[in-house]
Amino acid sequence: MIFASDNWAGAHPNIAAGLSAHASGYDPAYGDGALDRAVAQRFNEIFEREVAVFFVATGSAANSLALASLARPGGITFCHREAHILEDECGAPEYLTGGARLRAVDGRLGKMDPGELKATINHFVPDFVHAGQPMAVSITQATEVGTLYGLDEIAAISSIAREYGLPLHMDGARFANALVALDATPAEMTWKRGVDIVSFGGTKNGCWCAEAVVLFDTGRARDFSFIRKRAAQLFSKSRFIAAQFDAYFRDGLWLETARHANAMTSRLAARVEASSRVRVAWEPQANELFAIMSKDLAERLTAAGAVFHPWNTPHGYAGAIGDDETICRFVTSFATTAEDVDRFGELIA
Amino acid sequence: MIFASDNWAGAHPNIAAGLSAHASGYDPAYGDGALDRAVAQRFNEIFEREVAVFFVATGSAANSLALASLARPGGITFCHREAHILEDECGAPEYLTGGARLRAVDGRLGKMDPGELKATINHFVPDFVHAGQPMAVSITQATEVGTLYGLDEIAAISSIAREYGLPLHMDGARFANALVALDATPAEMTWKRGVDIVSFGGTKNGCWCAEAVVLFDTGRARDFSFIRKRAAQLFSKSRFIAAQFDAYFRDGLWLETARHANAMTSRLAARVEASSRVRVAWEPQANELFAIMSKDLAERLTAAGAVFHPWNTPHGYAGAIGDDETICRFVTSFATTAEDVDRFGELIA
Amino acid sequence: MIFASDNWAGAHPNIAAGLSAHASGYDPAYGDGALDRAVAQRFNEIFEREVAVFFVATGSAANSLALASLARPGGITFCHREAHILEDECGAPEYLTGGARLRAVDGRLGKMDPGELKATINHFVPDFVHAGQPMAVSITQATEVGTLYGLDEIAAISSIAREYGLPLHMDGARFANALVALDATPAEMTWKRGVDIVSFGGTKNGCWCAEAVVLFDTGRARDFSFIRKRAAQLFSKSRFIAAQFDAYFRDGLWLETARHANAMTSRLAARVEASSRVRVAWEPQANELFAIMSKDLAERLTAAGAVFHPWNTPHGYAGAIGDDETICRFVTSFATTAEDVDRFGELIA
Amino acid sequence: MIFASDNWAGAHPNIAAGLSAHASGYDPAYGDGALDRAVAQRFNEIFEREVAVFFVATGSAANSLALASLARPGGITFCHREAHILEDECGAPEYLTGGARLRAVDGRLGKMDPGELKATINHFVPDFVHAGQPMAVSITQATEVGTLYGLDEIAAISSIAREYGLPLHMDGARFANALVALDATPAEMTWKRGVDIVSFGGTKNGCWCAEAVVLFDTGRARDFSFIRKRAAQLFSKSRFIAAQFDAYFRDGLWLETARHANAMTSRLAARVEASSRVRVAWEPQANELFAIMSKDLAERLTAAGAVFHPWNTPHGYAGAIGDDETICRFVTSFATTAEDVDRFGELIA
Repeated sequence: MIFASDNWAGAHPNIAAGLSAHASGYDPAYGDGALDRAVAQRFNEIFEREVAVFFVATGSAANSLALASLARPGGITFCHREAHILEDECGAPEYLTGGARLRAVDGRLGKMDPGELKATINHFVPDFVHAGQPMAVSITQATEVGTLYGLDEIAAISSIAREYGLPLHMDGARFANALVALDATPAEMTWKRGVDIVSFGGTKNGCWCAEAVVLFDTGRARDFSFIRKRAAQLFSKSRFIAAQFDAYFRDGLWLETARHANAMTSRLAARVEASSRVRVAWEPQANELFAIMSKDLAERLTAAGAVFHPWNTPHGYAGAIGDDETICRFVTSFATTAEDVDRFGELIA
Repeated sequence: MIFASDNWAGAHPNIAAGLSAHASGYDPAYGDGALDRAVAQRFNEIFEREVAVFFVATGSAANSLALASLARPGGITFCHREAHILEDECGAPEYLTGGARLRAVDGRLGKMDPGELKATINHFVPDFVHAGQPMAVSITQATEVGTLYGLDEIAAISSIAREYGLPLHMDGARFANALVALDATPAEMTWKRGVDIVSFGGTKNGCWCAEAVVLFDTGRARDFSFIRKRAAQLFSKSRFIAAQFDAYFRDGLWLETARHANAMTSRLAARVEASSRVRVAWEPQANELFAIMSKDLAERLTAAGAVFHPWNTPHGYAGAIGDDETICRFVTSFATTAEDVDRFGELIA
Repeated sequence: MIFASDNWAGAHPNIAAGLSAHASGYDPAYGDGALDRAVAQRFNEIFEREVAVFFVATGSAANSLALASLARPGGITFCHREAHILEDECGAPEYLTGGARLRAVDGRLGKMDPGELKATINHFVPDFVHAGQPMAVSITQATEVGTLYGLDEIAAISSIAREYGLPLHMDGARFANALVALDATPAEMTWKRGVDIVSFGGTKNGCWCAEAVVLFDTGRARDFSFIRKRAAQLFSKSRFIAAQFDAYFRDGLWLETARHANAMTSRLAARVEASSRVRVAWEPQANELFAIMSKDLAERLTAAGAVFHPWNTPHGYAGAIGDDETICRFVTSFATTAEDVDRFGELIA
Repeated sequence: MIFASDNWAGAHPNIAAGLSAHASGYDPAYGDGALDRAVAQRFNEIFEREVAVFFVATGSAANSLALASLARPGGITFCHREAHILEDECGAPEYLTGGARLRAVDGRLGKMDPGELKATINHFVPDFVHAGQPMAVSITQATEVGTLYGLDEIAAISSIAREYGLPLHMDGARFANALVALDATPAEMTWKRGVDIVSFGGTKNGCWCAEAVVLFDTGRARDFSFIRKRAAQLFSKSRFIAAQFDAYFRDGLWLETARHANAMTSRLAARVEASSRVRVAWEPQANELFAIMSKDLAERLTAAGAVFHPWNTPHGYAGAIGDDETICRFVTSFATTAEDVDRFGELIA
């Protein structure tokens, strides 16, 4: 009953097997090997256009270097008030962009409200050097609280970004979970809706360590190769990332693991809905469920072996939470079993 | 006949097996898991004292963050003119230290000359703000040109560093190769000779991706955990690094692979010495051989399937090199076979 | 009727005369001259203890380098939501600290509420690397909206800072205006109330360009000299700053100009209170008045030659502002004349 | 007999008078005032084209921000081994460019040798990310050792820079001294010979503090305004710089003070040539003389009241220097008098 995070799991057996299969033999280092090139080509197919793809070590690196590639002097990136880049990366985006700043935008349930986004950008009067200048907009898909931007919502955000000449970044640490939930193609969820650069995460969805930055403007690729190396994010045996992505994409494994994870969250939600002691805080849309229960119950569930985290109440949350209650986050992954969910269901029944 | 680099090989079978063995099950993320803790304890044993160990993604990250942890405003690190940090990391050390600089120190065959080191440090008069202030000394062991600092030589460098109040960093991308060549213990090659912080590399010696920073001053560990996270170098599924190190250290695998790599270089050197068409540029001490041959021969060997790189003549090289000749680098690894070496030997016989 | 800002004025005649008086002759450069030393000694007297004083070019530099001297990896400085460092310095604090961040703390009328400060610091759980770590608290005295922290309020803030082991910075761009309004000594308003480092501004109060960082912990002085030089903030003819401070402090000129500026704001407030068409938004405490009037009137006053700026309504402002009304800022300085104030008074009568 | 540096003098009487003349009255802050605009227009006339001019606090700031505006990830600027940016700015260029590096190029007497420049750039193979990428070339005019690049020499350097797609920066801390020595126009010494950006210094030539960055590509001006503000280099009372430049350019004062300084160096050189105890180390071309004398004599001259600095022997200096001899630097300025030079001449006669 581990619902702590999707990164508490290890690697999917196919990923492990893929790594083993590519362990022997020689290949040029630093991303110039045959497997690296094949996987890069695979990204082109997946996104239905030529893209530039750069493997990096962590999701924070993908986000921070994506922003570094968009940096302007005195630059500001607009993101949701609870965005991972703002709250959970120890200032890596600020550090790796040389001090570019993030500006919180409000919005319900993890998503920037378009009106708030516009108002926040408008705070920065062009050429008023004291305030700095807008440089990018960043959305998280799926969001930090398990919700999704619909395709139209992405288009609405990107249309505002375009209006102000700002590139749009997508933090896709849970890209696949969002994709299958929306039943969209990668192209539809990104560049066809105006996204310019993606942090493409594989780690939370079954890989050991497979994160990439995907640029749709391939003209920026040359500089990005220096941006990555300068940040000490260029793997020598880059093949070990390529091998993971190779297995990840093979026979649609990535979509299958994402569908499984999402289904486990739905199953969990159903169990919660059936319970009189726990209630769903807001409708889950991907692989994270937030549920409200008494602190007392949370303790007893923990004692019974369930692992999950209490969570801060999102800014502007409209629901009611009692003083003795707590919002808790439950995350499911490729490794979550129906048995575990059901065991938990019985505990709260 | 791949002698291009020790990072053209994949992973040793035991490493691959170790990863697979730990792929299933749950473990806390971000380095707090049981395996992470066990491996940290293993580092204590290996170094015969309590150390603080931090996994990072690349050797450049290990070096750059080690220096970031030692940074002073206007700070300068002294290293050999051909050091990897100075020549081959795209400015990552400067970038990740917020602009701290590296200063080249001369010395024969990849090693700083103690007199030159002292003279170079003396260039920086205390409190003369215009020049900046010394902040660290860094040595590479084994060096970029396959040579070694003997234990006494390390002590000589550290004694100068101490004299000026400077911490001593060791870039140990090929730590194991140096260790077995010197027949020393990790403690003897590091803190017992005055080294303060080590970039401990496992990747070139048989891992997929296993690099760590080892701090002997554990009082610096708290800040280092923020330094690492801020640089986007904290793996979520940290277990996948721990699993590699676990296999790496098990039954002395790391020493065995290093001994094998070094032996292959010795075997290659013997073949070169037996040849009238190629000569050893300087005595190899670890797993890299530098040999001089005609450019014409180099081309023919390449055409025959041997892979190796031409190399810049080291600063101050005393040997003679003809106009039509070239120095070439040959690197051996855990994966190099005696058959390959011998095949190459026949080509140059 | 120029009430745009206290930096629209030039230099007080005594400052200009002081510069001229010291223009001839030779003096060592970079702050080692006799006048520099004399002025440094003057700072000791003014603060009634030994301090380390560093001239810099701008108030933003003073603030940013003060924070740079306190920086920790992943570090966060707590300041009021409308603080100059957060809103008006183009990200200089983030840039010059290598990416350290600022965190907004709420509070009425430009002052951090102690409870909010504590709650905001508590958001950062010790050793939770994802969030980063607190590094400093910064207050602005006088605040951006012309209010003051009373001596007890400073003590309350510093007591919280101490509780969390955080140094306390004071942005004293309008230090003198606050000082004379509180009728306190520099010592009482700073280190005797727990302030550790001060941005000491002279520019707004009658100098051309005279800003300094004052450190009460003189043990940090050596590193600060490198911090300043590295940021290209060490003047060669440092004497030209020293000459301004020399005149500034002579015969209490600085207190006199500040008293005059404050008195002009009081006079202006009286005129506004006497008017039925304009009202005081909140009580002015130093040399800035915020007044509410119709947008229409603001336009007509501007057309009549009054220069002042519309201002954003402070976060949490409790007063009422009509849709056709605007808050405007009026700043007075050493150069403001009673005639100008009275002329404006007649316009709004 | 102060020959220590041209920044030991204060300000020329006309500069002091100019400041006083503009001390009263109001003017918009931050460079938007009438005088700022007039001086900007004056720069256009002086350079015979539209330029973008940005006042900054120090020569180091001008150099560092000029390079920051040209920065590329992993970028490298090529400059002479003894360049001020490399040796005397405490790493400000590296710090303010976010870690971009400087690479030393050899050449006699302070000037990069074109062949060496080319060879050094060639060291960086395009797209080899490990080494980083070239980003700019920087020359110092007049050089650190008082020599000059002739107009043809500037053209030769810029032609190489163009060949590699690199912008050319000129550190003109002693711009005027070089200009009058070459009897060239500002246009001829800069953009007509391929210079793209200039650090234009007025401080050493009679101002208190008047440094500017001049961009010939005005399309870069918008970003530069943020680069300057972000680095805390935007003066609020910008008028005080403008007033200095206004006086500096009026009636050709700047050329007159530069001619005077150069003439004083020539006079000093003649005195040295007439002496049998001191000899000219190399021909002075601007306002700095380097002379060789016995250490014993240097001490006696110092005791007699002459102020000058011993200097490091330039890299590759071809002349002979005895063990008991020392090279000393003598700098003259607008403030140097013929009487002082002659007094010194008598001491060495």
